[in-house]
Amino acid sequence: MKHIVIIGGGFGGVNLAKQLSNKERFAVTLVDKNNYNFFPPLMYQIATGFLEVSNICYPFRKLFRNKKNIRFHMGEFVELIASENKVILSTGELQYDHLVFATGVYTNYFGMENVKRNALPMKNVSDAIVLRNHILQMLEIASVTKDYAERDRLLTVVIAGGGPTGVEISGMLADLRKFVFSKEYHEISGKGLEARIILVDGMDVLLKPMSDKSHADVLLTLTEMGIDIRLNMQVKDYVDNTVIFANGDEIATATLIWAAGVTGGEFKGIPAGAYDRGKRLSVNEFNCIKGFSNVYAIGDTCIQKHEVSFPGGHPQLAQVAIQQGTNLGKNLLAVEKGQPMKPFKYWDKGSMAIIGRNKAVVDLPNKMHFRGFIAWMMWLFVHLMSLVTQRNRVTTFYNWLIAWFTKDQALRMIIRPEEKPVSKL
Amino acid sequence: MKHIVIIGGGFGGVNLAKQLSNKERFAVTLVDKNNYNFFPPLMYQIATGFLEVSNICYPFRKLFRNKKNIRFHMGEFVELIASENKVILSTGELQYDHLVFATGVYTNYFGMENVKRNALPMKNVSDAIVLRNHILQMLEIASVTKDYAERDRLLTVVIAGGGPTGVEISGMLADLRKFVFSKEYHEISGKGLEARIILVDGMDVLLKPMSDKSHADVLLTLTEMGIDIRLNMQVKDYVDNTVIFANGDEIATATLIWAAGVTGGEFKGIPAGAYDRGKRLSVNEFNCIKGFSNVYAIGDTCIQKHEVSFPGGHPQLAQVAIQQGTNLGKNLLAVEKGQPMKPFKYWDKGSMAIIGRNKAVVDLPNKMHFRGFIAWMMWLFVHLMSLVTQRNRVTTFYNWLIAWFTKDQALRMIIRPEEKPVSKL
Repeated sequence: MKHIVIIGGGFGGVNLAKQLSNKERFAVTLVDKNNYNFFPPLMYQIATGFLEVSNICYPFRKLFRNKKNIRFHMGEFVELIASENKVILSTGELQYDHLVFATGVYTNYFGMENVKRNALPMKNVSDAIVLRNHILQMLEIASVTKDYAERDRLLTVVIAGGGPTGVEISGMLADLRKFVFSKEYHEISGKGLEARIILVDGMDVLLKPMSDKSHADVLLTLTEMGIDIRLNMQVKDYVDNTVIFANGDEIATATLIWAAGVTGGEFKGIPAGAYDRGKRLSVNEFNCIKGFSNVYAIGDTCIQKHEVSFPGGHPQLAQVAIQQGTNLGKNLLAVEKGQPMKPFKYWDKGSMAIIGRNKAVVDLPNKMHFRGFIAWMMWLFVHLMSLVTQRNRVTTFYNWLIAWFTKDQALRMIIRPEEKPVSKL
Repeated sequence: MKHIVIIGGGFGGVNLAKQLSNKERFAVTLVDKNNYNFFPPLMYQIATGFLEVSNICYPFRKLFRNKKNIRFHMGEFVELIASENKVILSTGELQYDHLVFATGVYTNYFGMENVKRNALPMKNVSDAIVLRNHILQMLEIASVTKDYAERDRLLTVVIAGGGPTGVEISGMLADLRKFVFSKEYHEISGKGLEARIILVDGMDVLLKPMSDKSHADVLLTLTEMGIDIRLNMQVKDYVDNTVIFANGDEIATATLIWAAGVTGGEFKGIPAGAYDRGKRLSVNEFNCIKGFSNVYAIGDTCIQKHEVSFPGGHPQLAQVAIQQGTNLGKNLLAVEKGQPMKPFKYWDKGSMAIIGRNKAVVDLPNKMHFRGFIAWMMWLFVHLMSLVTQRNRVTTFYNWLIAWFTKDQALRMIIRPEEKPVSKL
């Protein structure tokens, strides 16, 4: 019986576990700091009130209920003692035969402490809820304040990061402004005021990794939606409700959404030489970490270079994580049967980004490109099918249906659970 | 144009606003510290993971979208300056022609500071989420801890308060234990361990205000569900994970749920003589506060005595708040037309409490009594219809349907939004 420990229950970790489920010779322990899996591509919809948390989250214990050989252990990684095949967690220790890091990435503030302290990241469910609360709160204060400078700051949102996250959240905010804001915030809309949405990026195009056609489409569409796009602009600081750029420009705002960079995690017990750029763990073609024989990494947290096809490693996308998880699972099973491992080969199924109510951009590998309504339908379908359970699909679809028909969302509640400090046990 | 200010958007406040909606001569401002209305009778279902927040909450701005004469103002009461017909809020000041307190009640800790600090209350949505997180967290820690004394503390839940809230949450926890716990927490269930659920109350019966038949039914049903019921037990303290009773008994537990008492709010600017027992505001038969001519109170926060029918005031129930809100609304309209006000007369439609999956108790005014499945169907129907919007009804019904068929709930996510301190504006 081989014990596989997987740290992280995202796309990579869950797919790896699925490959090994109900396989008698394997006992799997999945470790995660949260007790649920969530679906990052749709998180910005929690942040803008179109979806509820439960639409895109699912508890691990429920997910693995019928898988006899998979256990869930809630906790965080603390240290790796590779010489003893042991990993120490915040809630105990585990011995392993194989250990897999599927930990994803974290928000990168590029050393800017004020940005880290004051901006709103968008990497997990907590972030999304905090952002939702913040935006709603700002609107409520703006409705009643008599200080006009304050009101301008409250009605200005700056989004840093022109990747899919930044683009998607800008689009949704623009829809909110058009369909909801004017109807329900009479105190502030239509009085010569405007809620400004400003999307900034250090690059010269939005959605850099996508095709030129996608670059052109997204720029045009977002501009038509009334979003102020400022390219070649690098954020340098965010303090006293002012975003300061490298070129000296400033924008006064109470809301800076930070979707401008990611970085891998640092793991005590893994030597510095195993990391590559972006703090990604260097792995070989079987996803085994450099310098180890039974410790692996899959998904965003690793970098696997292929001389011809991906000399700089794969893009940090869900599909890569899913496929690497599946491949590693099959490889571990193969080894158990005395068969050789297969190197990982990424099957690029294309990429897509949603822009607004009816609009998206899709690039398929054969250089096909779609935009507008048909791209949007494709985006909806792929994301709905990628959700981890049928229940998630039904409830997400229901919320989308309602939102689409009513041009609105109803999930705009500011919920702030005020936690008591948990008594020391 | 008369300006009505309503402090509090619960059952009473919302129904009063509805009466005055689209009435030209009235401008209504509804004030609430939250930006949404929520439905207290179903809150324990958020706490136990059967319902999601959005099923029973609805944003005020959306609620009043088509009511041209109703505004929402988010904020908390600070002070009343009755001589100037002015009320000061945390977010501004409002002048009024009529002011209505519809503020409900708050958790009463009877002066026990440790209980206030360490126990988990159950009065609003934040409380429900904190409780849900706490229970799930305790189970996860129990799954991995090697300290048996700690594990016992984690697997023991004490509920203080034998009213509907305490009874309902005990029943739901028992269902969780029976249908979910054993299937998903293999590390701790079925190993000679037991998750203990202990319901305590200082009285000699549960659901004291209900009929003798209800007392008997609820005691029998809860006991059959494996809940340990201890009556005539008064909590004196809760410290070091130990509940201490007045008679000297102690129970070691990491979870004390406090549903044992309520108290009205204290309002600066209202003299002490206007309060009665339980800090409830004394009002006359038109819900006007003693000593005032244009300041009113409705719902749980007031006490209105009727010599024959309700010498001690009405029970603090949703129906009373709803009816008082409606009556006051009609009275304010009548006065505007030069007609006399009508005194409030409570139409007792009966009371009900749910006990578990298929069980409830219902007392109707004509001394009719129902229990079991038919009572449960009545309970479901009444609560579904009482939800404030169609959307809430559909989504709540969906979640109940799934929970009932699967004997389970899927909303068991620990979500802890870690708020950054909001920059001083």
